[in-house]
Amino acid sequence: MRVGVLGCGTVGSAFVGLLARQAETVRARTGVALEVAAIAVRDADRIRPGIDPTLLTTDPAAVVADPAIDVVVEVMGGIADTRALVLAALAAGKPVVTANKALLAASGAELFAAADAAGVDLLFEPAVAGGIPLVRPLRESLLAEPIDLVVGIVNGTTNYILTRMTESGVGYADALVEAQSLGYAEADPTADVGGHDAAAKIAILASIAFGVSLTSDDVDVEGITSVTTRDIAFAARHGFVLKLLAVAERHETTDGVRQSVRVHPTLVPVDHPLAAVRGSFNAVFVHGGAVGDLMFYGPGAGGAPTASAVLGDVVDAAVNLRRGAHASVGALDVPNLLDSDELVDAWYIGLVVDDRPGVLAVIAAALGEHDVSIASMDQDVADPSDKVARIDLVIHPARTAAVRATLDALRTLDPVRSIDATVRVLPGVVGA
Amino acid sequence: MRVGVLGCGTVGSAFVGLLARQAETVRARTGVALEVAAIAVRDADRIRPGIDPTLLTTDPAAVVADPAIDVVVEVMGGIADTRALVLAALAAGKPVVTANKALLAASGAELFAAADAAGVDLLFEPAVAGGIPLVRPLRESLLAEPIDLVVGIVNGTTNYILTRMTESGVGYADALVEAQSLGYAEADPTADVGGHDAAAKIAILASIAFGVSLTSDDVDVEGITSVTTRDIAFAARHGFVLKLLAVAERHETTDGVRQSVRVHPTLVPVDHPLAAVRGSFNAVFVHGGAVGDLMFYGPGAGGAPTASAVLGDVVDAAVNLRRGAHASVGALDVPNLLDSDELVDAWYIGLVVDDRPGVLAVIAAALGEHDVSIASMDQDVADPSDKVARIDLVIHPARTAAVRATLDALRTLDPVRSIDATVRVLPGVVGA
Repeated sequence: MRVGVLGCGTVGSAFVGLLARQAETVRARTGVALEVAAIAVRDADRIRPGIDPTLLTTDPAAVVADPAIDVVVEVMGGIADTRALVLAALAAGKPVVTANKALLAASGAELFAAADAAGVDLLFEPAVAGGIPLVRPLRESLLAEPIDLVVGIVNGTTNYILTRMTESGVGYADALVEAQSLGYAEADPTADVGGHDAAAKIAILASIAFGVSLTSDDVDVEGITSVTTRDIAFAARHGFVLKLLAVAERHETTDGVRQSVRVHPTLVPVDHPLAAVRGSFNAVFVHGGAVGDLMFYGPGAGGAPTASAVLGDVVDAAVNLRRGAHASVGALDVPNLLDSDELVDAWYIGLVVDDRPGVLAVIAAALGEHDVSIASMDQDVADPSDKVARIDLVIHPARTAAVRATLDALRTLDPVRSIDATVRVLPGVVGA
Repeated sequence: MRVGVLGCGTVGSAFVGLLARQAETVRARTGVALEVAAIAVRDADRIRPGIDPTLLTTDPAAVVADPAIDVVVEVMGGIADTRALVLAALAAGKPVVTANKALLAASGAELFAAADAAGVDLLFEPAVAGGIPLVRPLRESLLAEPIDLVVGIVNGTTNYILTRMTESGVGYADALVEAQSLGYAEADPTADVGGHDAAAKIAILASIAFGVSLTSDDVDVEGITSVTTRDIAFAARHGFVLKLLAVAERHETTDGVRQSVRVHPTLVPVDHPLAAVRGSFNAVFVHGGAVGDLMFYGPGAGGAPTASAVLGDVVDAAVNLRRGAHASVGALDVPNLLDSDELVDAWYIGLVVDDRPGVLAVIAAALGEHDVSIASMDQDVADPSDKVARIDLVIHPARTAAVRATLDALRTLDPVRSIDATVRVLPGVVGA
């Protein structure tokens, strides 16, 4: 089986090296002999250690069209041109393995349909959570499991930053600079710290887990740029760790099944498995009606781990191609999204208030008017000279509409100077 | 597709119920219509809530032989009779899904060969770590990954007992009684607390991960019956949690590739992902040369979680059967086991000694003579009236032969009254 590789960056070059080292193992275990036969790059003249220069070409379309190529690996990134190349490969009857989460989150349904029409594989383990075997367990092992929750730490950059803020007490800005200096964050970190990378990944995972077609546009996104060391200290005092979570839920409502998909900073109890996921690692927690709680943990990015996932999928695609079989995600239904106002969550709310008697009573009354109740609270004097105090509280689960109305009401209260923290708590934890 | 179920205990009855609830989802996603057509039990007259009594029979051989049965689920347990039934089903061209770890750990190679000869599936996700998708990721996603370490908490009973000892300070005997009263431990707990259940599971996992044929007899086993609250307190003081781990390693030696497989109490650093696995949960940590560190976490036992794994495999077997394909573990090589004397580990050693000047110097000298060095140490007076002290130490990694010789030498020293703790540390942690 001859593999054509589109792209030779960190993942592509790691894949070419890994395949060379492991080809004999693959042949012994599956009977399939794999070799890389062409690599499409932008600059064929650049010296690439470990890469045979005679395999390089600058024409990815020629690699896809070459009748000698059996399987296509897409690790070049981008959306518009890449989509056309993937569709061309599938139409030519060639299975495709892609690491391109942005492409799948934008055009997944179209690409899956094209793969089914052609009767070949479109596999994408490397597109979500790097080296963690996650897509295949969800697609196959858990195909029949009634999954109602997928919640993950699926962005290593933000988890690194939050881990540093938690464990060393540094502020967001310093932790970001440190992450950039270590290569964990890009010079323009927006896609990571803004939550958009995590949104693409949870759209893909939720699509498979719930059997519906979700895109990045279906995801409510809030990043970590407003997280403060104060929020993290509050979390620690109350037995939580602050994490950027991607959360997909399946809701059984009186109007039928609904889905919700979102990315936001979240308080996670310290004894929850996700709380122990440190640094740049990823983990995805899955709850199913029969199986209960599962978690998949590992490296969410990096050349070698992602190459491992690419190779796993290439072996699968090659074995399937030889058999004339292919793996399908099945027909994805149109989602029926829950209005975000209908979500029921516990929240941590941080208020800056006047330091005078009776303030807490005024705030408690405002909460009570909206049927919102307090689960736990801290009150302290922030600045005696200016008579400023802080009230930090966790409310019991409430509809988001009620929480928003409550926050609006709090803002109009005379003793409330500002609301500077509104962070949700992991579903099912407070008052559950 | 008609499924015949052998056994209708906790897992079997949960599987029958789950399949009934999820059959429509399976049909929508795969096009395969599954139904349970026969259930072999010991007592067909017992009332079983939710089970159609017309499906019950006391003749498992008839279920296996029935031409109307397409797929066989074996959840009856036992070895000799069960082995014959599984072989008969495979010979009749019927894929088999089994939850029987003891059978696989004893006769896996024979059964895998029979499945390959018949060209049908023998799937066993439910046999290891209950509901956690683990066998399939190892068999398929990580088929090409150079795995060198599989280390897991694969017995929920012992993890529950050790968690209670750690978090509540109760002794082993009390924690065992509590586990028995909650149904986590059997009246005769030997298979669990003696490490034998974990040994069968790690033999299966190591066989797949390394591509060699290992049985329970290849596993060095030590249970948790000698673990004391003192060991656990020492572990906590030095940043460890004490866990019963099943450890399989692939060693590249000058004599070629060797394997080692063992089960024993182990000190795990508190910030390691396995340290956060509490109560009756299971988790399996995998290290691969390309992918790095992975962990799979979830419920290791229980009717519903295990039924989830059975159903996942049944769907896979049915889809494969329709395609005329089957999943093979491939040819398993004969293992080349490393002599346990050659293993290199760090150890925690607890000594009871005379409380008099110069004792530590005598002990340090004995260690030094065997080229064993101390990584950390606690010394305290256990009983002033009797002039008894304790020395607890962690040694840097050393060959097991040297550690054993050192322990023998220590026992002969005049001030050493006894050695009452010898617990290994997770490989790669101390001095690595």
